[in-house]
Amino acid sequence: MTDFEKLDNLNLMIQAAEKSATLIRANFRQSHAFEDKASHQDIVTQTDLQSQQSLKDILTQGMIALKYAESEIGFVAEESQQDNLQTHNFIIDPLDGTSNFASGIPHACISVGYAENEEIKIGVVLDPFSETLFWGEKNQGSFLKSKLLGEKTLKLQAKPVQEWMIAAHFNSKDSSVAAKQFEQYKQLYPHIRGLRNIGSLTLDLCWQADNIFDVVLNQGCYFWDLAAASVILREAGGELFDLSGSPLQFDWQNSKQPYAFMSCHPENKAKFEELSK
Amino acid sequence: MTDFEKLDNLNLMIQAAEKSATLIRANFRQSHAFEDKASHQDIVTQTDLQSQQSLKDILTQGMIALKYAESEIGFVAEESQQDNLQTHNFIIDPLDGTSNFASGIPHACISVGYAENEEIKIGVVLDPFSETLFWGEKNQGSFLKSKLLGEKTLKLQAKPVQEWMIAAHFNSKDSSVAAKQFEQYKQLYPHIRGLRNIGSLTLDLCWQADNIFDVVLNQGCYFWDLAAASVILREAGGELFDLSGSPLQFDWQNSKQPYAFMSCHPENKAKFEELSK
Repeated sequence: MTDFEKLDNLNLMIQAAEKSATLIRANFRQSHAFEDKASHQDIVTQTDLQSQQSLKDILTQGMIALKYAESEIGFVAEESQQDNLQTHNFIIDPLDGTSNFASGIPHACISVGYAENEEIKIGVVLDPFSETLFWGEKNQGSFLKSKLLGEKTLKLQAKPVQEWMIAAHFNSKDSSVAAKQFEQYKQLYPHIRGLRNIGSLTLDLCWQADNIFDVVLNQGCYFWDLAAASVILREAGGELFDLSGSPLQFDWQNSKQPYAFMSCHPENKAKFEELSK
Repeated sequence: MTDFEKLDNLNLMIQAAEKSATLIRANFRQSHAFEDKASHQDIVTQTDLQSQQSLKDILTQGMIALKYAESEIGFVAEESQQDNLQTHNFIIDPLDGTSNFASGIPHACISVGYAENEEIKIGVVLDPFSETLFWGEKNQGSFLKSKLLGEKTLKLQAKPVQEWMIAAHFNSKDSSVAAKQFEQYKQLYPHIRGLRNIGSLTLDLCWQADNIFDVVLNQGCYFWDLAAASVILREAGGELFDLSGSPLQFDWQNSKQPYAFMSCHPENKAKFEELSK
């Protein structure tokens, strides 16, 4: 058992994510028991549920060891029936990229955000396959650590349009939205370097903070997909905009609220809007 | 220097690919000197050129050590101006996924096919980031080795449509083809689990041999993208079909010939055609 008293909140979150990473790697490419949620494109595996339980257990025990009252600890988690917002809240996606995981694509992550009341203070995202850790703390910057790249501070640059990589997806719940997305991508495509759909929105946003993606587009995501990664991206200098062009706001009273957004370096927003007209 | 006389052709190819993998990892996320080839979507980096030179040097030296006459050794390579087909031919893509590499996406591979006259006998594909090696030998099967998955024989299964992952891309040279691809994907999308565009066709085909992808679609690829991976996929039980539905044939007299194909388990071909109507 970890000596939680030696940890601060950030390191507690990293510890919890690493435990889930071990679990996800151990279950990868084993028999994929899964159930459809809303549709055959929206599935949950036993691994999502195990990872979520492990995160909740470790975070709760760790917070208690850090002298927080258990009654003040809240969770919003993807695979839960109900939210439980308190003073100290964790917003959890136990396995972002479930379809990848179920199909054997080694690209997914664990996402843990920490909020005091309704202000997200810390984001931790861990890719268990490349063993890349992304984290950000409000007003303290965001960072990456991996075997391949070492440790570095993340700072988004505004690249020219012809070098843009755009992370995109197709809405799995509303086929009329998906059809419009295909039209938008068809229009954008000739101007940019490439479009990628790799299957984990949370990692798309972290990769954007690391200057891999220049624009991330998504219509059909949730608070737990975005909470941790939004701190990481914003601390790197990026912004998420809702479809009216305003900085994306979270609805803390309704975690089931779906979001649509585009994210980019603020200097590239006008260029993107021009290309999408 | 390797003692080439201890190697057979397969192990020589693996040795050459491993040298290029070291080079690609060392250059990853360094300054990305690149030049446009046909367009801003078709680029070549110094790393492509260095990898190709390294592959040619090692393969030539190794074949000579194996007592082949230098005059009998030929190459078809992506970054070459002219082909040089002989009795013993290597078909090389020194870095499949150049746009990924240049944008910092750790998903690319080295591809080396070996042909006696015009028959491809061996395919070797190495992902330098996940350190996954795929190989196939005609009539001997195909195999994978990685730290994550160990070593295993590849055998393609015919999964039900609602579990299909389709690997797709958008043609970068002909916008009318790209527009038709967007239409096709829009039609297929509601029936399947997901569409992915990860940025390395050669790895798409190897992942298909490993049951990650159920269908791979591409319109605008070349001999060097396909040569090695086609052996690996066919030995796993998959097939590549041209747009008329016949098994894909290579034009050995013209390596600049672009190809369009779909690949799948033969039992799934009719289902795919039904969905694409």
